[in-house]
Amino acid sequence: MELKNDLFLRTAKGEKTERPPVWLMRQAGRILPQYRKLRASLSGFKELVETPHLAAEVTIQPVDELDVDAAIIFSDILVIPEVMGLEYKMVEKVGPRFPETISGMDDVNRLISGKNAADELEYVYEALRITKRELNDRVPLIGFSGAPWTLLSYMVEGGGSKTFSKAKKFLYTQPEAAHALLDKLTETIIIYLKNKIAAGADLVQIFDSWAGILSPEQYNEFSLPYIRKICEAIDEAPVTVFAKGAWFAMENMGDLPCQVIGLDWNTKPSFARRILGEKRVVQGNLDPCLLYAPHDEIRKHTLEMVNVFGGHHIVNLGHGVYPDTPLDGVKCFVDTVKSL
Amino acid sequence: MELKNDLFLRTAKGEKTERPPVWLMRQAGRILPQYRKLRASLSGFKELVETPHLAAEVTIQPVDELDVDAAIIFSDILVIPEVMGLEYKMVEKVGPRFPETISGMDDVNRLISGKNAADELEYVYEALRITKRELNDRVPLIGFSGAPWTLLSYMVEGGGSKTFSKAKKFLYTQPEAAHALLDKLTETIIIYLKNKIAAGADLVQIFDSWAGILSPEQYNEFSLPYIRKICEAIDEAPVTVFAKGAWFAMENMGDLPCQVIGLDWNTKPSFARRILGEKRVVQGNLDPCLLYAPHDEIRKHTLEMVNVFGGHHIVNLGHGVYPDTPLDGVKCFVDTVKSL
Repeated sequence: MELKNDLFLRTAKGEKTERPPVWLMRQAGRILPQYRKLRASLSGFKELVETPHLAAEVTIQPVDELDVDAAIIFSDILVIPEVMGLEYKMVEKVGPRFPETISGMDDVNRLISGKNAADELEYVYEALRITKRELNDRVPLIGFSGAPWTLLSYMVEGGGSKTFSKAKKFLYTQPEAAHALLDKLTETIIIYLKNKIAAGADLVQIFDSWAGILSPEQYNEFSLPYIRKICEAIDEAPVTVFAKGAWFAMENMGDLPCQVIGLDWNTKPSFARRILGEKRVVQGNLDPCLLYAPHDEIRKHTLEMVNVFGGHHIVNLGHGVYPDTPLDGVKCFVDTVKSL
Repeated sequence: MELKNDLFLRTAKGEKTERPPVWLMRQAGRILPQYRKLRASLSGFKELVETPHLAAEVTIQPVDELDVDAAIIFSDILVIPEVMGLEYKMVEKVGPRFPETISGMDDVNRLISGKNAADELEYVYEALRITKRELNDRVPLIGFSGAPWTLLSYMVEGGGSKTFSKAKKFLYTQPEAAHALLDKLTETIIIYLKNKIAAGADLVQIFDSWAGILSPEQYNEFSLPYIRKICEAIDEAPVTVFAKGAWFAMENMGDLPCQVIGLDWNTKPSFARRILGEKRVVQGNLDPCLLYAPHDEIRKHTLEMVNVFGGHHIVNLGHGVYPDTPLDGVKCFVDTVKSL
């Protein structure tokens, strides 16, 4: 079947397009009144993640409401640690909490991984299949995974953290256990992303949300090689890598065998272009807080950004859209790009 | 009176020295058993900040215990918002909380500022005078202040935040009120730092802890010009500017009329040197989590860092030392530098 709007995929694959495509990280979420209504009727966040027809419903909401150029499957990066053996809870207003954490090689050895783990996430694949069918090829569908380092950090910390010092300490004091865990995560993520593509994802994005916590040396040892391995293993669909805060590794990011590089809002477009070159496809990177600004400011900054990137660019924010962002600010951003 | 150990000051002023000086941000704090003991006997963190002889005592503890090349006065950046009219509480395990926050120009207009505010912080100046006397010129004494943007962010958010989206929204939606607040903070900080120098500080450091939250454009508009103004106003002692996460503004930082530029642990020494030049005095930037590592790792990375910076370098971490850092790791770090 052919996509009615394939702008996003053509851009991701390196083609020159009539205008840049646009979507928003976390577009399926609290910014939409229809999401908030559905969410309020449920027992919790995980019910939404684990119920395929509901996950599909919220995935499609932003396509209906905002007319973005891509859908991204509603899910959570922590389904991977969970299926490997580490259950988590999503605590309202606090975030994820793992009652048990990884503290050494014995814990790593107990985790299941690879196909045995990834194949268990049937509710995710079913959500993709339903979404794909109901989207009816209006726009491409994005699948995603957390990067191995980011998932490790939750599994060791037991939740979010200001400094992630427990996770970093683990890398410095137990490098062998860390590499063993990263290997297990990597094998699992590869199968998981391949399964997602088989279930309908047209592109997959890897989120390394905590990249910016690591020193350049640690990033090169404990994160990038595993992301590279995933990129090398996925040849069924294009891959986007978004490593938040990894500006210090921009040159190495440029060498990754992936199709698209996501950029956070700290990264000047001119800096990224200087290091990555004019032809590398990039995604991002408007400051999410700009969507609180008056509309003429949103338009001005969006157009400036598009202009400096100068093509080979998927328009997005430099981070997930914040839940309290006014919907008309989001629409102004999307419409500005679509009017180009 | 002459300092017995003036290595830190000579390096800050651009002299070539026999070895690099070393101290740690947050060295007066929970890493030391004598600090924890004293702290446990008090009603709370603010009692320590507001009692001059106690603040002096914990300021000197790391000089006794670690033999570092500088002392930094024990205090809190939030004494400035407080003396301007916005009281705060330090909530155990949560952090600072402002019961009232700034939400518009009316709130800004109500704040006192400049000499009227800064002169009220007599307990800080008294702590400096006591410390200076009791240090007996063993090492120089550092005074400090939060940068205007960082203080604004607390005053608008009401506390710490993952995204600081409220503070950033304030900049985007009420730029005039933001500039008015930044002006008031700047006037106050200038007098505050001058008073600190008069009370005995040999160098002052400006902490822009939340620099990395801003987009490059916002940083250039709402933070850097105010830091520049402070640097221009202080000619009684050298000034260090530490803007965490402001790698994107490194070129502009290099142009600041300050003596020392602090670097966080994300910044590769080679990147900083390329942009700032070989002669600019820098401070930093070991990953604080490295102090959890085995001692040979600490030594190896410390020596490598010293080597790449190649002089004109004050050795420090790239962030405040974390409270649970083992004391022997800290000592290994300090001793490695002192043995050079």
